[in-house]
Amino acid sequence: MKQMEPKNYDFSNVKFFTPAQLSQHYGLYTNYIDCYNNVSTNLQSSTIYNYCNSNYSEIRSAEKSKTFCLDSIKLHELYFENLTGNNTRIYGKIENIITNKFGTYSSFLDKFKCIARSMRGWVIFCHDKYSDDYYIYGQDSHDDGVMLCAEPLIVLDVYEHAYMIDYGTNRSLYINVFFENLDYSIVNQRLE
Amino acid sequence: MKQMEPKNYDFSNVKFFTPAQLSQHYGLYTNYIDCYNNVSTNLQSSTIYNYCNSNYSEIRSAEKSKTFCLDSIKLHELYFENLTGNNTRIYGKIENIITNKFGTYSSFLDKFKCIARSMRGWVIFCHDKYSDDYYIYGQDSHDDGVMLCAEPLIVLDVYEHAYMIDYGTNRSLYINVFFENLDYSIVNQRLE
Amino acid sequence: MKQMEPKNYDFSNVKFFTPAQLSQHYGLYTNYIDCYNNVSTNLQSSTIYNYCNSNYSEIRSAEKSKTFCLDSIKLHELYFENLTGNNTRIYGKIENIITNKFGTYSSFLDKFKCIARSMRGWVIFCHDKYSDDYYIYGQDSHDDGVMLCAEPLIVLDVYEHAYMIDYGTNRSLYINVFFENLDYSIVNQRLE
Amino acid sequence: MKQMEPKNYDFSNVKFFTPAQLSQHYGLYTNYIDCYNNVSTNLQSSTIYNYCNSNYSEIRSAEKSKTFCLDSIKLHELYFENLTGNNTRIYGKIENIITNKFGTYSSFLDKFKCIARSMRGWVIFCHDKYSDDYYIYGQDSHDDGVMLCAEPLIVLDVYEHAYMIDYGTNRSLYINVFFENLDYSIVNQRLE
Repeated sequence: MKQMEPKNYDFSNVKFFTPAQLSQHYGLYTNYIDCYNNVSTNLQSSTIYNYCNSNYSEIRSAEKSKTFCLDSIKLHELYFENLTGNNTRIYGKIENIITNKFGTYSSFLDKFKCIARSMRGWVIFCHDKYSDDYYIYGQDSHDDGVMLCAEPLIVLDVYEHAYMIDYGTNRSLYINVFFENLDYSIVNQRLE
Repeated sequence: MKQMEPKNYDFSNVKFFTPAQLSQHYGLYTNYIDCYNNVSTNLQSSTIYNYCNSNYSEIRSAEKSKTFCLDSIKLHELYFENLTGNNTRIYGKIENIITNKFGTYSSFLDKFKCIARSMRGWVIFCHDKYSDDYYIYGQDSHDDGVMLCAEPLIVLDVYEHAYMIDYGTNRSLYINVFFENLDYSIVNQRLE
Repeated sequence: MKQMEPKNYDFSNVKFFTPAQLSQHYGLYTNYIDCYNNVSTNLQSSTIYNYCNSNYSEIRSAEKSKTFCLDSIKLHELYFENLTGNNTRIYGKIENIITNKFGTYSSFLDKFKCIARSMRGWVIFCHDKYSDDYYIYGQDSHDDGVMLCAEPLIVLDVYEHAYMIDYGTNRSLYINVFFENLDYSIVNQRLE
Repeated sequence: MKQMEPKNYDFSNVKFFTPAQLSQHYGLYTNYIDCYNNVSTNLQSSTIYNYCNSNYSEIRSAEKSKTFCLDSIKLHELYFENLTGNNTRIYGKIENIITNKFGTYSSFLDKFKCIARSMRGWVIFCHDKYSDDYYIYGQDSHDDGVMLCAEPLIVLDVYEHAYMIDYGTNRSLYINVFFENLDYSIVNQRLE
């Protein structure tokens, strides 16, 4: 496991978010990078593999945090990357996929937003490589409810930390604002 | 979401497992198929999207079970598929990857087995498409601790239902027996 | 935190369970005692409180396992204690409570058994001290879905390890057998 | 299961919290009351017990949400009740318990605050009725990591929704501010 560095994102065109909300969210992301790097260092040690126990052990703790933090890093990078405020009108390959699957973009939006209000961590529109199908699905935390073999296309953070500074408990408004910032050029790149 | 059918597996060369253990395990897998098909049917209804709530709602329940059962189906199919009793000696591309990453196959086995004794659901050796790296990682249940964007190569079920009929609580022995049945031809196919 | 010792149970009148099932289950219980004692020792160290982090830290790992293992110890002791094969006919104060709440014992049994088939870890009939009400409720693991302030009266383990050696995946049969062994004298003592 | 009503709290002496933070937090609490009442209504129906399944069923969904929301209601009521801004200097029976167990109040505070920074949902100082001992322990969500048989004495919400409007991601500052508002008169009443 290599050491990681946080990536940088350009939020200059992101609408309806304050710098406080975005910068504090970004700060949490860097904490997950630190977590991953700490785990990575500890897993270099051979002694951590000397006591293997599913109730309580250092290796168990490291493995739990490895996946938790690595999932969180990936999800935050995918989220920040598709939150630019540019190219917010759907077009191209993603438009074809969504209209084939849901009939209309509006029907897709209704379902995505409903699922976003019904889960506690993340909402994702993905290609499932295993079944070669497309799904909207939700997670309750960074590592709880992840869809195995999914290739994320649209990624929305619905953790309270993503919106509470700007929107308080008004998650519905935050979800609407997300789609006013979602960059379909990035989403189409993920389909290549 | 399409309806699914359970796949069939040939366990005739699998060693050190009784037909009772294997057939009851297979029966659980068919339950997950039923679950997925029920969820799939319920998600066809447009009324399920009328009430969206992260504390208690039909859509929440369907979404939770969709991922839980779909993850479980994928993991069980990958497990049954790589548990044949044939081609149990490591070779080919997977051998190169493992020796590059862990030095020796024996060192890989020590780490994999330790993690398998420290987690509560599944242990997986995977290619992480996101970071283009390889990891052994463990899950505590079908949907808890899944690594996002992972492409599973070696899949071991460590739920109690996978071994208790044959091995009681002796999970270490079960893990050893798994490697006496692991089909490296299947693992190499997953790398193509 | 004091060191703990496993308690002993007399299973000599327990019907329809093999010694293998009961002794291996008891062995898992002693593992939770070991876990608790290890955590307890590590929490004596003052250095464990030097690094406090909710993504990855020794204190986090110790705290997670402390509650997991302590809950598991309590639940197993309550389960083994009420699984004697004696006094299996309902009577006394618990009978009054159940018939007041559910109309008939048979109606209670139907609901309890249904919930026992719908959860993944434990099913409990309890007095909720906070609301001064009675509930059947279920947990998905030792520490997931615990009812805060509950005083357990009837405790049934539905982890796969509780029945797979004797009943395979036939959980319904195991649940029936539990009630042929449930000691209502013990349950009534818990109401004093 | 009876229908519930939200309780009212007097936050007029609470320091260093804005009305926005407190009122939005209170609003979330009323959502949990709604959840409980919905579950309660659905559990009146006898048809919900007709299909019992641990992968996907209405009874499973209702039972999961029953405990989640009931735990959340209890915890929020205990939290709001002990957050008054009055009687913030430790005294009485709780002082004796804490100094007996931790040596000094300062040592207790250090440990409590460290655990509060290491968990994801709640931190609680409780009397464990089962072992007749006292513990600081933490939960990762309303229903994950609850200590069975615990009688809560000091209850601190560390969900992001408890502090993000006022403190952003600065959880350490929020934890300090909690102790400047903790009402030891309420805590002592819980010991009676």
